[in-house]
Amino acid sequence: MDFKSYIRVIEDFPKPGISFKDITTLLKDGDAYRASIQAIEDLVKDLEIDVIAGPEARGFVVGAPLAVQMGKGFVPIRKSGKLPGKTVEQGYDLEYGSDKLAVHDDAIQPGQKVLIADDLLATGGTICTTVKLIEQLGGVVVGAVFMIELEELNGRDKLPGLRVQSLMTY
Amino acid sequence: MDFKSYIRVIEDFPKPGISFKDITTLLKDGDAYRASIQAIEDLVKDLEIDVIAGPEARGFVVGAPLAVQMGKGFVPIRKSGKLPGKTVEQGYDLEYGSDKLAVHDDAIQPGQKVLIADDLLATGGTICTTVKLIEQLGGVVVGAVFMIELEELNGRDKLPGLRVQSLMTY
Repeated sequence: MDFKSYIRVIEDFPKPGISFKDITTLLKDGDAYRASIQAIEDLVKDLEIDVIAGPEARGFVVGAPLAVQMGKGFVPIRKSGKLPGKTVEQGYDLEYGSDKLAVHDDAIQPGQKVLIADDLLATGGTICTTVKLIEQLGGVVVGAVFMIELEELNGRDKLPGLRVQSLMTY
Repeated sequence: MDFKSYIRVIEDFPKPGISFKDITTLLKDGDAYRASIQAIEDLVKDLEIDVIAGPEARGFVVGAPLAVQMGKGFVPIRKSGKLPGKTVEQGYDLEYGSDKLAVHDDAIQPGQKVLIADDLLATGGTICTTVKLIEQLGGVVVGAVFMIELEELNGRDKLPGLRVQSLMTY
């Protein structure tokens, strides 16, 4: 299936000069959405995986159905303050200021094999922070998989030694 | 499966007196998560559905895998400012102040049958707003389904005439 034909490119969002890849036009097509999750599963099916982790909110639309389809648990990575239980947190830099991501401190058991799933690999900042959170809990990150990778931003260079795969590249 | 045994109850979150039902302890168990989505599908399988809509962010962990499993499209309902394309918006009141939910103006075609999926039915405010957004686009809401319903908050009274179903009630 030509998944790219379902992606809408919106210029100058969220700011001038950015060519935003909108996945909602793929998600709303039942056949395309199901086929995309199946194709992502095919990319990672040789990996040993215990749980799948995905950062909010768009990571949930990739990671959650992938987890259910593969019969794996799903661990949501959230902005600080959203999770009700005890968490560990990691800060990350934004263009202006900084923010924090959090995960429940019992979400991953030491030694569990974790696949990270997200919609987009851009500069890699969110995924770097997600890797740190998982490793802080003793989890082993076995790979990261994305619906879309923006190759010119070299996000995978921030993830040395990690198996990084994408369904579509721009 | 006794789904409630996978739910963690956290007292006094997000504020004193609230007994928060934490679904992350269910999500991280692959067998329980898959079984819960299957059980939710069983609740709605007699409905005619074109697309499934879910409000961010926890609605995505119910609605997205349900959509993929049923082969339906998924329409994310987001906070204002998050969606890249043209949107319609609806305001809703919070305890202090107000906020807005948004959906792409081409996400749903007039006459399409829409199932709303979310993790929790509490007071029903988010779901009321979601119904308004869908109807603003000409969609027909055929039902709403939840992982958990807090019965004492009477959220379903805010949704008269709508088929409302829940996997677990408290």
